[in-house]
Amino acid sequence: MATVNVDVVRVRNGQRVLASDHAVAEEPLEIRLHKRPFATIMRTPGLDRELAAGFLLSERVLQTSEDLGSIELCRDIENVVEVVLTGRSAESLDVVLAERRNVAANSSCGVCGRLSIDALASNLPQVAAGFSVDMSTLAGLPDRLRAGQTVFTVTGGRHAAALCRPDGTLCTAAEDVGRHNAVDKIIGRMVMQEALPLSDVLLFVSGRTSFEIVQKAWCAGVPLVAAVSAPSSLAIALARDAGITLVGFVRDGNFNIYTHPERIV
Amino acid sequence: MATVNVDVVRVRNGQRVLASDHAVAEEPLEIRLHKRPFATIMRTPGLDRELAAGFLLSERVLQTSEDLGSIELCRDIENVVEVVLTGRSAESLDVVLAERRNVAANSSCGVCGRLSIDALASNLPQVAAGFSVDMSTLAGLPDRLRAGQTVFTVTGGRHAAALCRPDGTLCTAAEDVGRHNAVDKIIGRMVMQEALPLSDVLLFVSGRTSFEIVQKAWCAGVPLVAAVSAPSSLAIALARDAGITLVGFVRDGNFNIYTHPERIV
Repeated sequence: MATVNVDVVRVRNGQRVLASDHAVAEEPLEIRLHKRPFATIMRTPGLDRELAAGFLLSERVLQTSEDLGSIELCRDIENVVEVVLTGRSAESLDVVLAERRNVAANSSCGVCGRLSIDALASNLPQVAAGFSVDMSTLAGLPDRLRAGQTVFTVTGGRHAAALCRPDGTLCTAAEDVGRHNAVDKIIGRMVMQEALPLSDVLLFVSGRTSFEIVQKAWCAGVPLVAAVSAPSSLAIALARDAGITLVGFVRDGNFNIYTHPERIV
Repeated sequence: MATVNVDVVRVRNGQRVLASDHAVAEEPLEIRLHKRPFATIMRTPGLDRELAAGFLLSERVLQTSEDLGSIELCRDIENVVEVVLTGRSAESLDVVLAERRNVAANSSCGVCGRLSIDALASNLPQVAAGFSVDMSTLAGLPDRLRAGQTVFTVTGGRHAAALCRPDGTLCTAAEDVGRHNAVDKIIGRMVMQEALPLSDVLLFVSGRTSFEIVQKAWCAGVPLVAAVSAPSSLAIALARDAGITLVGFVRDGNFNIYTHPERIV
């Protein structure tokens, strides 16, 4: 993953030592839809087109891979991805942009977790039954990912996300300063490969699971989400309604299942 | 911190046990400016007015405590905070809302970390010299915060942030599912107490330091930011320009200083 060299004063046992170190790179990325600015995201450079594709899927600008006409790095300007939509998505672009501006304005009845879930549920079908996973395969994922080329640790300020097959083999992985970005990058890669819905892979993340991580899995049709750390209350509620198996605290060979345990055998 | 009871299937050494557990609560919060929806944030309930005040400071809607007229929980609807601005901020509300919509549209020259920093630097003065901190005080902060009532650990899916005096005593602390929210809550509390600029405290966070964390410190005038984990490249660059001392990897009695080491003696 991209890093930047930085000078650092190391303080060890009360002694100062001047040293050189690496910091995880962070830069803004602007996503443009049909030449119009849509969003700016702070991210670690790399897999920028994939990040944009995954982000647009989670934002429901893209419903399927077929909505994606072209997605290219801007030639003249750094840190800009240019996206062109096709078909229905292109026709509804003005509506999408207006909705994005007005989404808060429409919540005149206030907001609660239940409404946030219902808003998604009205647009997305429950995920497919998918597959089943062995307990031991799931428990062994952290070691397996660590042993591969992926640095699947939380130290050093980076977050990792991976898509794995039910037998535990790695499908794709990414790292980023942002948890959400790492997930968008790997799901976005699948969008670009026209591989949606992702009913035959599980999503594994290095940190904890929030509402948004489960939301991204649901938009992509991923039936199982597992994480090294804890899920939030709303992540659990959303996974239950989405039909997604949610697993937390995958560490030391053990884990907790929060929803739909039937996929784990 | 608010938690929600959840059922869980614990898998230990290949055996399943049904159990009851606690998940960190997560719910959306809508912030309204003069009855108009401004933003919706996913957060752990609690300190909602403080969260809104801190968020509005970071978004530059509030420049000082004096811009805050009233900030109240909506009586009729859960998860809504109603904010009324005074003086110059109230007069410029339409401009602020329009700017928020158009901020991306104006970056016709593209975006880069340098521009993100320059945009802040054009509106904010460098932080004041503030104070100096003993090496040993800084190194001892994690133990000290852990020993107090604050659960200053990253386990369990929660993030913590604290403001401390130069002698290491705790000024205020908060926890949240979101790292940024924890910081907004404690800075927002100071906004409501009309204590800005926060030139006599340091900010300590349980995770890593991104651009946005340093941005929030700068908006509040905090001269020193310390974290248990790593800073990103852009966090370091921003701290350097802001005049903020940035410290990372505060653990096991040691730490790294990335910028402005002169405040640590």
